[in-house]
Amino acid sequence: MTVRCTVWGENVHEHENEVVASIYPNGMHGAIAAALNCDPAITATTVTLQQPEHGCSEGRLDETDVLVWWGHAAHEAVADHVVDRIMRRIWSGMGLLVLHSGHFSKLFTRLMGTPCALKWREAGERERVWVVNRTHPIARDLPESFVLDMEEMYGEPFSVPEPLETVLISWFQGGEVFRSGLTYQRGAGKILYFRPGHETYPTYHDANVQQVLRNAVHWAAVCQRWNSICDAPNIPAELAPEPIIERGPKIHKKGEPGLR
Amino acid sequence: MTVRCTVWGENVHEHENEVVASIYPNGMHGAIAAALNCDPAITATTVTLQQPEHGCSEGRLDETDVLVWWGHAAHEAVADHVVDRIMRRIWSGMGLLVLHSGHFSKLFTRLMGTPCALKWREAGERERVWVVNRTHPIARDLPESFVLDMEEMYGEPFSVPEPLETVLISWFQGGEVFRSGLTYQRGAGKILYFRPGHETYPTYHDANVQQVLRNAVHWAAVCQRWNSICDAPNIPAELAPEPIIERGPKIHKKGEPGLR
Amino acid sequence: MTVRCTVWGENVHEHENEVVASIYPNGMHGAIAAALNCDPAITATTVTLQQPEHGCSEGRLDETDVLVWWGHAAHEAVADHVVDRIMRRIWSGMGLLVLHSGHFSKLFTRLMGTPCALKWREAGERERVWVVNRTHPIARDLPESFVLDMEEMYGEPFSVPEPLETVLISWFQGGEVFRSGLTYQRGAGKILYFRPGHETYPTYHDANVQQVLRNAVHWAAVCQRWNSICDAPNIPAELAPEPIIERGPKIHKKGEPGLR
Amino acid sequence: MTVRCTVWGENVHEHENEVVASIYPNGMHGAIAAALNCDPAITATTVTLQQPEHGCSEGRLDETDVLVWWGHAAHEAVADHVVDRIMRRIWSGMGLLVLHSGHFSKLFTRLMGTPCALKWREAGERERVWVVNRTHPIARDLPESFVLDMEEMYGEPFSVPEPLETVLISWFQGGEVFRSGLTYQRGAGKILYFRPGHETYPTYHDANVQQVLRNAVHWAAVCQRWNSICDAPNIPAELAPEPIIERGPKIHKKGEPGLR
Repeated sequence: MTVRCTVWGENVHEHENEVVASIYPNGMHGAIAAALNCDPAITATTVTLQQPEHGCSEGRLDETDVLVWWGHAAHEAVADHVVDRIMRRIWSGMGLLVLHSGHFSKLFTRLMGTPCALKWREAGERERVWVVNRTHPIARDLPESFVLDMEEMYGEPFSVPEPLETVLISWFQGGEVFRSGLTYQRGAGKILYFRPGHETYPTYHDANVQQVLRNAVHWAAVCQRWNSICDAPNIPAELAPEPIIERGPKIHKKGEPGLR
Repeated sequence: MTVRCTVWGENVHEHENEVVASIYPNGMHGAIAAALNCDPAITATTVTLQQPEHGCSEGRLDETDVLVWWGHAAHEAVADHVVDRIMRRIWSGMGLLVLHSGHFSKLFTRLMGTPCALKWREAGERERVWVVNRTHPIARDLPESFVLDMEEMYGEPFSVPEPLETVLISWFQGGEVFRSGLTYQRGAGKILYFRPGHETYPTYHDANVQQVLRNAVHWAAVCQRWNSICDAPNIPAELAPEPIIERGPKIHKKGEPGLR
Repeated sequence: MTVRCTVWGENVHEHENEVVASIYPNGMHGAIAAALNCDPAITATTVTLQQPEHGCSEGRLDETDVLVWWGHAAHEAVADHVVDRIMRRIWSGMGLLVLHSGHFSKLFTRLMGTPCALKWREAGERERVWVVNRTHPIARDLPESFVLDMEEMYGEPFSVPEPLETVLISWFQGGEVFRSGLTYQRGAGKILYFRPGHETYPTYHDANVQQVLRNAVHWAAVCQRWNSICDAPNIPAELAPEPIIERGPKIHKKGEPGLR
Repeated sequence: MTVRCTVWGENVHEHENEVVASIYPNGMHGAIAAALNCDPAITATTVTLQQPEHGCSEGRLDETDVLVWWGHAAHEAVADHVVDRIMRRIWSGMGLLVLHSGHFSKLFTRLMGTPCALKWREAGERERVWVVNRTHPIARDLPESFVLDMEEMYGEPFSVPEPLETVLISWFQGGEVFRSGLTYQRGAGKILYFRPGHETYPTYHDANVQQVLRNAVHWAAVCQRWNSICDAPNIPAELAPEPIIERGPKIHKKGEPGLR
């Protein structure tokens, strides 16, 4: 069975900026999905901000193993209830790749619990991405480092939590560095933040970037679901794994649900 | 200079439940602050949910080095804008201790980005708290383990992110285990989740629990501030650390702020 | 292609203790390998301490994807040069499962860099293993917790480094707790420490324990090799990714290898 | 009370290379100790490879809160039993700063359990050290980044375990990056690997480097000792925290020590 991947595209600059439109005539999401579909073990489709529910209905998410998220100009336009729904689906076991300017998305900042801020410069400079964790599944078949001839600079400090793993670090021509591939887990969901992908450059046509995306989709696909992860079950004394005798004063009446 | 500590109390069950009122005549927050003030290097004061801004004005937070948070019955009553303000203050370098049922507070779940759910049982059973990281500052002067004769059970899985450090793990009479002392960092802020503290038992009068609280306040006090942590500064080509020549197409006009 | 698994057995108590011999007539390693071979995607074979090179020749290791290690009575009898060889193979991408009393093996303590000490009691008490990370590949198809009716107690503090992930925590009848499933990475090698398995009890005949072992073998199988991981290559100025002009005083003559 | 710091110097190149001798007339260890002693809360003294026990007797270590280690040419000359002694002292609560070429020392590689290899180039190029964790105690009073005009390049992949925290990352003129400030804990001991410090350049005279060293000494000073960390105490059934009835077959006779 293939990994079912939904590529979410903000789909704004493709229509407002001629350069972006010319690089990505099918949208950035279209280019990303096409790159993923080169792998016969991945089935990638696209949704966009402009669709009802931003394309992220319960049904759609339920059939998604890994979500890929690219946004930049319209983070605030994403409805809170859709973000909440996506977060619940991640917690129960959907993978997530957050790309480039998605660092400021509602989705990513709420999963991280931090500002996710950084330095930036749009000057078409050279980026060199180094693989720090050589045999991580995300780095499969990559060279030691790869070059993106023109990219936007993102510079440290990147105000995210200490990651589970640092897989990639970028060098920039202008003198900055950035942790470009960071892994996290939130609930059952595996998350990769992957830095490259400014819309005015052809980054998602780069073979190494595409390889990272395909690798990461396989890595992020969670095999088991944890649908009850938001529950806080009461285990009454008579069902305790070891026999105990109930005693002491209480807040809760028998059988009452817990407070939230 | 002493560590300035603000103890936030939900202050609901103290007024609604006679048992809680009799154990904590000055409120749970009052008992916690008193325990902290036994250490001459800590200056602890209290605020409650019922005060304007829940006692968490900008000015108050600005003069707080470490915030202690106990809530249970009224998580939803805490205003979103106050939670946002506290989060920003944590990011810029305020420590945070989240106690017991605070695991479901808006503040903690938003900092974690996960459900923070768990199993529970209110049966007055025995809890044995084991110190896993013996020389961690939070464990200073603690015995190898300590017993709380009556406590509410919290059981794994506790759906929080993988912590920076696991300091304490609890054994429960009824057969469950729980990671009772977990550390995190969010922005500049150091965070401890500390499990014990059900309101119908005299937990905050326990000498070992009080020792953990005092230790943790010192541990969580951040020495430096990072007030600009939410900024995303543009570093134009002419200010790049290394000389570069600007090129390529752009989204942003010169001097324009970044998109959020 | 199946995962090639080598099960290393110390094979001492099976010959010295009648109880152990009766529980494990084919050796503990034999029982473990049989459990692994129930999975058609695993090919497990056994080697023992008593063989030349303890069964761990270069050739054998080269054809091993995951090594499973059980030892107790004869840690010191394992030759240092064999330990060094196994460590190099792990670094280049062999998975490792260290079982129970293997915590004090040369192999494990050298990979951890810590004492790996713990409390213990051989009293045939009940152990309850809780799954903390429900959807981790190691926990696949496990219940929320499982019971081993008779096991040796291991108690915290377990002096190992802070793990990458805490997957399992044990509750013991006598009042102790223990982190029973901990993951690490050393070089390219993925490592699981898995607690249960005292030789006088039938632990490796338990269905849940066998499930963990099979899960862990698949999880630990590293897909890529990193054979050059011990190299420290010089990158002379003329081969630097970016053009630089060599300057300044030197310790090394041109082309000289680095110091070790 | 001041932090008692012992600076260990290999003290070889200072006598074999005129450049090194001229930059560090009192030895590199002398320069480092002088920089530390600028802080009245630190008392730093020096020892060298050439002294009996390499200056690391039991008594000396017992009176050391933080050890600083610089070595390059003579890692193999350090006696194994001294390395073992230092490791035990770290485990029981001595801090450790490993500097630059100390990455290949017996001490560091044994604490890490990995090759600790990296790329290198001695070309006097520019290094720019970025602070990733702005308010970490190690970064106190540092600017956002600082420049070392001439340094040896160290390049990723650096084959160390995933750190507890990544505090500093370096940018090199020649195109490489390196994680230059990494924290670990081994037993009770807090460890910092800090990259800069090639002997033919005046790195330890740099004000920012000196600031890192002073900060790190304070950060690494462990307040509590854990002298029993290597013990594996038996807790017999009659001393179990909870009452249990001993049963089942045994390997150990009553009161027998555990196997190692």
